[in-house]
Amino acid sequence: MTLTDSHPGWRRLIEAAELTRFTTEALRTAGARHDDAAVTAEVLVAADLGGVESHGVARLRRYVEGVRNGDINSSAVPEVVTDNGSVCVLDAHNGLGQPALCTAVDLAVDRATRSGISAVMVRRSNHMGIAGWFAERAARAGMFAMVTTNAVPQVAPMGTNEPMFGTNPFCYAAPTTEGTLCFDGATSTVSRGKLEQLDRLQEPMQPGWALGPDGRPATEAAETVTGLINRKGYALLPLGGGSREHGGHKGSALGLFAELLCGPLAGARWSRHTYQGGEAGLGHFVLCLNTAALGDPDAISAEIEQLSREVRDGTPVEPETSVRIPGDRRRLVTEMRLANGVPVLESVLADLDAIAHFVGIDPVSSLTYDS
Amino acid sequence: MTLTDSHPGWRRLIEAAELTRFTTEALRTAGARHDDAAVTAEVLVAADLGGVESHGVARLRRYVEGVRNGDINSSAVPEVVTDNGSVCVLDAHNGLGQPALCTAVDLAVDRATRSGISAVMVRRSNHMGIAGWFAERAARAGMFAMVTTNAVPQVAPMGTNEPMFGTNPFCYAAPTTEGTLCFDGATSTVSRGKLEQLDRLQEPMQPGWALGPDGRPATEAAETVTGLINRKGYALLPLGGGSREHGGHKGSALGLFAELLCGPLAGARWSRHTYQGGEAGLGHFVLCLNTAALGDPDAISAEIEQLSREVRDGTPVEPETSVRIPGDRRRLVTEMRLANGVPVLESVLADLDAIAHFVGIDPVSSLTYDS
Repeated sequence: MTLTDSHPGWRRLIEAAELTRFTTEALRTAGARHDDAAVTAEVLVAADLGGVESHGVARLRRYVEGVRNGDINSSAVPEVVTDNGSVCVLDAHNGLGQPALCTAVDLAVDRATRSGISAVMVRRSNHMGIAGWFAERAARAGMFAMVTTNAVPQVAPMGTNEPMFGTNPFCYAAPTTEGTLCFDGATSTVSRGKLEQLDRLQEPMQPGWALGPDGRPATEAAETVTGLINRKGYALLPLGGGSREHGGHKGSALGLFAELLCGPLAGARWSRHTYQGGEAGLGHFVLCLNTAALGDPDAISAEIEQLSREVRDGTPVEPETSVRIPGDRRRLVTEMRLANGVPVLESVLADLDAIAHFVGIDPVSSLTYDS
Repeated sequence: MTLTDSHPGWRRLIEAAELTRFTTEALRTAGARHDDAAVTAEVLVAADLGGVESHGVARLRRYVEGVRNGDINSSAVPEVVTDNGSVCVLDAHNGLGQPALCTAVDLAVDRATRSGISAVMVRRSNHMGIAGWFAERAARAGMFAMVTTNAVPQVAPMGTNEPMFGTNPFCYAAPTTEGTLCFDGATSTVSRGKLEQLDRLQEPMQPGWALGPDGRPATEAAETVTGLINRKGYALLPLGGGSREHGGHKGSALGLFAELLCGPLAGARWSRHTYQGGEAGLGHFVLCLNTAALGDPDAISAEIEQLSREVRDGTPVEPETSVRIPGDRRRLVTEMRLANGVPVLESVLADLDAIAHFVGIDPVSSLTYDS
């Protein structure tokens, strides 16, 4: 086990299949259709499996509450509202983000298989979990894929401490002979989920991650998370931080163009106009470029594999470590957790049991075992 | 004038039109066709006009020498070698990068105008200046555009100090009612050109920008530049720096996926395989998404303008400053330099005069005047 999996807060384990079943059941009982619940659960548990707990079942409560109180429309069916062949827009009708984006990815793959390239955008959507799950789905079909989304405004562009952008991931994936090469990261230096996790683990914040209401670096994870949720003057900083010196203008630009793709281009809400009047109104963006339109797809996958291998074979700066490429850690953690179970923090477990009680199903803690 | 334009190293000014004429003439006399020389000069001078001197005429010597000694093929005409309608590949036949990429952009715009979206890649190309010039060209035709390139390996992915990626820009542009919104930045925290400029200006390096042969932060700009050119163990660091804490893995991923798009996907060389045997073999990537395929293009441009305005109107962290969006500074500097002349460092001027002597045209210094 890695250090991560031996943290004292992680005393309980649960089999991934059990966690997926519970999550599906919770969403279904709350009101979601079975297929929508299943894909949403799969994406959430994929995050927990891959070590991205910030985007995993720790978020389930918000989903279940949203479906129960009607902020998320559980009977929505994504509808194609613009179809120009290679360029389409879906209206998610305020349904769960995961099924809407999954529909968009499958449509994008279909269209790019025919014409070589496609873009599918989604409007009126909700939180959709880890972008990587969707990009990898397209990459497995032979696509170079790019996926992004906007989100609740939490990131201040360089020069202000007003949160204007979501943590808007930039996410790319491509096929390799071994599977996929995929990167998925927030355009902020860290995500709010990461701070929530930090708070759960009682670990310290770093300067350059977030600003407080006074425009100075925020230092307390719990305070910052609360401040971000309640929009009390806190803001995450873009990749590169708050100054030009280390490239804060670059992270800001990544966040801005994600808003642009998912907002004005998708016909969705953007920046501070999301999450108004009980509807998120988020947008997602999917690009697929079919490697088969460029040459022999197997040869291209093999060359991507070779590029990955050469990077991995670089001389490490720290002896006894190795150079990692995107996905290496996630794949390792996933394998381990599939074999040994998914560690769940006590606080998350309590949350899941509260959800079970809320929707009237068996508590999840009965399915866990000691690590 | 801004602080930038009052630096003591900048004692001479030259009219932009004169500088463009000189640059065109130098390239033409060296052996380039007139049109190729003209577009190359336009892109180089656009960088000087916009305050990106690192990518301007300071690089002309390498171009002229390359054309003269045959490392760059001055008679090359870019050829479409793959045409799948919306997805094309050009072979630049080792010609100048600017005309090849310009041809690619025009083809991408044409195809996206028909089908809504297109990708055009270039292989066997050379250095092509600032990506922003090309992305803006597409944006003015109503496109959301993405342009990237690979380049001589100088950036070490996180975890190693072996340079494996070029400074591979990520560059996006989109139409607005006022013109374009465009970001163009290296996937390293700083570019080598920036360090060359720092050296010329005798300004200090920051930690997190580059590593020395011992794997420790490099501190001397001149040494680092020489070490990068001679491949003596120096490396630039990716956006986010050398550690995960501030997102070095994110900058690494941006650089890696640029290599992937411009290398394996374009059928060009990548990473350490570029610049071997007297040929750069670089690849470029252009994506165009036609905003007219998504709705009323004027309405979309207006919404992008509104997004830009809202960001610009954010409360500044430092009173008496204002929040800038990508392109604001560049536009301001361009206006000023178009009116007052382009400042040229004495050292660059000496270089340009040496080029003039080399190709047998009048020295540029006779065209400059005191600032």
